Amino acid sequence: MTNITPMAPGCLKGIRVLDLTQFEAGTSCTQVMAWLGADVAKVENTTVGDPGRRLGPNNKVDDPYFLNYNSNKRSITVNLKSPRGLEIVKEMAKKADVFMENFAPGAIERLGLGYDVLSKINPGIVYGQVKGFGEGSPYEKNLAFDMIAQACGGTMSITGDPNGPPAKPGPTLGDTGTGMLMLISILSALIQRAQTGKGVHLQVAMQDAMLHYIRNSFGITAKSGKAAPRTGAASNSGGNPPCNIYPCAPGGPNDFVYVYTSRGNPEHWPRLLEALGRKDLIGDPRYSTQAARVEHEAEIDAIITEFTSKRDKYECMRIIGAAVPAGAVRDTLELMNDPNFEERGIIQSIDHPTNGKFRMATWPVRFNGKPVPVKPAPLLGANSDEVLKDWLGIGAEEAAKLRADKITAS
Amino acid sequence: MTNITPMAPGCLKGIRVLDLTQFEAGTSCTQVMAWLGADVAKVENTTVGDPGRRLGPNNKVDDPYFLNYNSNKRSITVNLKSPRGLEIVKEMAKKADVFMENFAPGAIERLGLGYDVLSKINPGIVYGQVKGFGEGSPYEKNLAFDMIAQACGGTMSITGDPNGPPAKPGPTLGDTGTGMLMLISILSALIQRAQTGKGVHLQVAMQDAMLHYIRNSFGITAKSGKAAPRTGAASNSGGNPPCNIYPCAPGGPNDFVYVYTSRGNPEHWPRLLEALGRKDLIGDPRYSTQAARVEHEAEIDAIITEFTSKRDKYECMRIIGAAVPAGAVRDTLELMNDPNFEERGIIQSIDHPTNGKFRMATWPVRFNGKPVPVKPAPLLGANSDEVLKDWLGIGAEEAAKLRADKITAS
Repeated sequence: MTNITPMAPGCLKGIRVLDLTQFEAGTSCTQVMAWLGADVAKVENTTVGDPGRRLGPNNKVDDPYFLNYNSNKRSITVNLKSPRGLEIVKEMAKKADVFMENFAPGAIERLGLGYDVLSKINPGIVYGQVKGFGEGSPYEKNLAFDMIAQACGGTMSITGDPNGPPAKPGPTLGDTGTGMLMLISILSALIQRAQTGKGVHLQVAMQDAMLHYIRNSFGITAKSGKAAPRTGAASNSGGNPPCNIYPCAPGGPNDFVYVYTSRGNPEHWPRLLEALGRKDLIGDPRYSTQAARVEHEAEIDAIITEFTSKRDKYECMRIIGAAVPAGAVRDTLELMNDPNFEERGIIQSIDHPTNGKFRMATWPVRFNGKPVPVKPAPLLGANSDEVLKDWLGIGAEEAAKLRADKITAS
Repeated sequence: MTNITPMAPGCLKGIRVLDLTQFEAGTSCTQVMAWLGADVAKVENTTVGDPGRRLGPNNKVDDPYFLNYNSNKRSITVNLKSPRGLEIVKEMAKKADVFMENFAPGAIERLGLGYDVLSKINPGIVYGQVKGFGEGSPYEKNLAFDMIAQACGGTMSITGDPNGPPAKPGPTLGDTGTGMLMLISILSALIQRAQTGKGVHLQVAMQDAMLHYIRNSFGITAKSGKAAPRTGAASNSGGNPPCNIYPCAPGGPNDFVYVYTSRGNPEHWPRLLEALGRKDLIGDPRYSTQAARVEHEAEIDAIITEFTSKRDKYECMRIIGAAVPAGAVRDTLELMNDPNFEERGIIQSIDHPTNGKFRMATWPVRFNGKPVPVKPAPLLGANSDEVLKDWLGIGAEEAAKLRADKITAS
């Protein structure tokens, strides 16, 4: 953990989360609760655990994918096929504030841990479920992954080159994007529970969650009566040049700078010209109004490219960004290696038992100026005995017997 | 409002939000609080209000953009340049649980409504700020919009055709994606405040927030030591065909179906072959293992396209999706007109005073099986008197005087 900045104490201290999530849509949700101080007990099977641990074909250790979505949690392995194992999870449910799962449709109910069962054991439990498609959808029994949700939820249709096929947005919005909406609902339910004492059954579908992130495009459709188009690097709203990326030296795949002049800010255009060293064009009627700039977009692109193509993207961002909104296109390696993120605690380094030193993006919101502290993801079953003791008061002797009986493993 | 499904009562009933947000990053955050039952008083200037109301050049009425991010709120206009106007907002801050703003860097402090001021008036206030770049970043004074955040935050670098330039993900992740992370922090701070009585100063940068949504790609970089690449419609993790879109009849810009076979599920491939009517290929060593399928990806694409190109995307989804993860690429018009979303309350219709009947995507999470109810966005200043009365006990006479003095307007 970086010690450059003091860390924020967790807001969710004292909240117990019974975490039966796997892969990303569910784990991203409980990950944030753990970052914010909740006690997240991740229940995994005794053999391989969360399949997200072993993503690559040759992985012998927990994949970075797993580390990124399971830090600050504790892992307890439980054989849910054994009656005693199932009983342990039900005992934990009695003590839990939150239950969270994202198995395939019907799986948690077949295990005997559906909302009807757990809400009888603990009427105050906030019970969250992420599925691919919503109850009542013709596809409610279908499996989904991030890309399926992004295909069916509209995000792909508005992403990519205008003359090419749909592209998948790189961010895993189907997974983490859905997990965040579930988390907002969980926290709201906890706030309500403080008044009523009653839990809530929360359900979200990954397809449905995608609609929340493309409401600008629905606005376009509301006005045009047509499907919102793909617009490459431009804004989906369109019609306001310059609003695009421009190539920079030395011409690598991500050597571009974004340049934008706001509709609401008529001074942006002359300010941009000044930054580009083209004061001679200020007042030129070919470019003076937004309508004129739409007409002369190709010339505008040439004027800007003339400047940007001779400079690297950071110099372009520095010069142009001081005048109008502008930003260098940054890739994941540049971001990960930028010391400013580590100084500010937005990226933190952890020491993982098998992966060694590992840098990871953390919760980006600062609390009273401080980032939240990040701890490594647990190895499979690393905290079984500890969680049994903390949650259920089970002592060392009984814990050893549970291990011997293969109810837990560590 | 649709009455097909009963609506969930709001979890955040009784929470008062003093909302000085505009455009999207801030409004999306307070929008969800309003959907979930909070009393959101949107404070706007007396002349044009939130600039998001008038986005298009020819708009005489509130743009669909505004409607999408401001439903269920109440609008109060206040002239913040007048001492009495400023005093009113400070009086409201005394009564507020949450304050939220996303003006340009330094603007709210120049108005005299910075955290240092409001936390003295109300030590329990949860005070949220969204900016483009973080405090301590070299760009902390720069303006940002969604596309600038997506350029600088890495999401563009991993989106688009592998042989083309970066593309902007269509979803407005820089705005709504940031707003959701702020909201999670606000709700967590409210949970903590119930114990401590103390408020919190929350700050998030749109650039930093982008990192949260591309952690898979950081995992790729951790393993490869290289920037994560663009992969078109494929998953950024790569190397697991089929994992792509396939063209369907009749060949329109969004007539594609996504087909995926999971690494973790070796039965997916023979099941897919059966669905495609190609049982003859089950067991063929050219395709039997993941490694073999990587080698013969072009042939696999041809086998699937042979099937999909003769059928429409919904038929493809029905047949293939019954066997393996698969999903039709849907555009915003298809989604908006799909009655299933309205039946389930995921899209709801409102009657807006100037826009008429308007369908909008709503909060996708269901509470005890019910969606949240959506009400129209307020006209500028529509609720000034009502809010003055509810929050500050200001009666009709004083409210009329405030209007006459141009402190408020309606």
